[in-house]
Amino acid sequence: MRGVIRVLLAEDQSMVREALAALLGLEDEIEVIAQVARGDEVVDAARTHRPDVALLDIEMPGLSGIEAAAALHRTEPGIRIVILTTFGRPGYLRRAMESGADAFLVKDAPAAQLADAIRRVLRGERVIDPTLAAAALVDGASPLTEREREVLRASGDGSTNAELARALHLSPGTVRNYLSTAIQKTAARNRAEAVRIARDKGWL
Amino acid sequence: MRGVIRVLLAEDQSMVREALAALLGLEDEIEVIAQVARGDEVVDAARTHRPDVALLDIEMPGLSGIEAAAALHRTEPGIRIVILTTFGRPGYLRRAMESGADAFLVKDAPAAQLADAIRRVLRGERVIDPTLAAAALVDGASPLTEREREVLRASGDGSTNAELARALHLSPGTVRNYLSTAIQKTAARNRAEAVRIARDKGWL
Repeated sequence: MRGVIRVLLAEDQSMVREALAALLGLEDEIEVIAQVARGDEVVDAARTHRPDVALLDIEMPGLSGIEAAAALHRTEPGIRIVILTTFGRPGYLRRAMESGADAFLVKDAPAAQLADAIRRVLRGERVIDPTLAAAALVDGASPLTEREREVLRASGDGSTNAELARALHLSPGTVRNYLSTAIQKTAARNRAEAVRIARDKGWL
Repeated sequence: MRGVIRVLLAEDQSMVREALAALLGLEDEIEVIAQVARGDEVVDAARTHRPDVALLDIEMPGLSGIEAAAALHRTEPGIRIVILTTFGRPGYLRRAMESGADAFLVKDAPAAQLADAIRRVLRGERVIDPTLAAAALVDGASPLTEREREVLRASGDGSTNAELARALHLSPGTVRNYLSTAIQKTAARNRAEAVRIARDKGWL
């Protein structure tokens, strides 16, 4: 008989984090041994508490769950990684798997899938929603360069080109060029639509 | 000694909903007697299951938690209402309280506040985060008319004026006028910024 499965839980919303811990606490052989609220605390907590599985939300301050997964995978490759997110965006899934995640779950899924995924990744399985996997293969790869992504993301709050240029240390002409390419690549008609499309696909 | 507190839980994300139920299940005298995933199922479920308290997420399909609170308050005024949301936006708080909510909690708050709020609203108390209450008094009241709000919200996906006009059954000139007033009222420089400001304040 195997022992208890030790889980590190990273989620920035306290109430959701503690609720997930309560949910996992209903499973006999799963124990939440540490909780953190920031992505940049994941690696340290993993070193201190030695979990079997790290359960990571994507949208966290400090580092995103995807960035935290990459850092954890690089430094502590023995720890299995489950990504749990509100947003089942194809680009998120693709980036998560490229960062070394073993499972990708959405918070819309039935609660039973969470404990199930934790058990399965420990057996060496990959766990992904099949519909989401198909979508990620079709349009998960972002056509945007890192710079285009940065400029498009920054433009989402309605900043002018001049403000974007100042904030990103670029010339206004360069900002205009990046935005124009990003609009073209997302097949959008304007900047706001490009932001929306890229966000929905998980490219931002 | 008082009996068990019966709670109706409305939240669209299954995993979060069941996790919150597990969290409340840790409290001896609280029982989650029904769960729904849509705002437009709240009133029916309340009539069927007769809860003491309805715990409502804001962002749900069908009806928002705020709209569900208003409907519940109108038809079943004896049931206490706790709003639980990801977004501590002043406008949400104000609209929730105007709709008859007794408590307004953010998912960022410590988990212990949830059971505490449920007990307190049953004693007739109002439970609101004091910082959020102050912010709501300062800028919680939306300056937008219902029509301006509708047009601004619809414009958030990058639609052109002509598309907005078709979708909302208005003339393009009327759409332009509403947007222009909304931009002015939010002190924004353009449409995208107006959308962002209004969203951040909970006016959309």
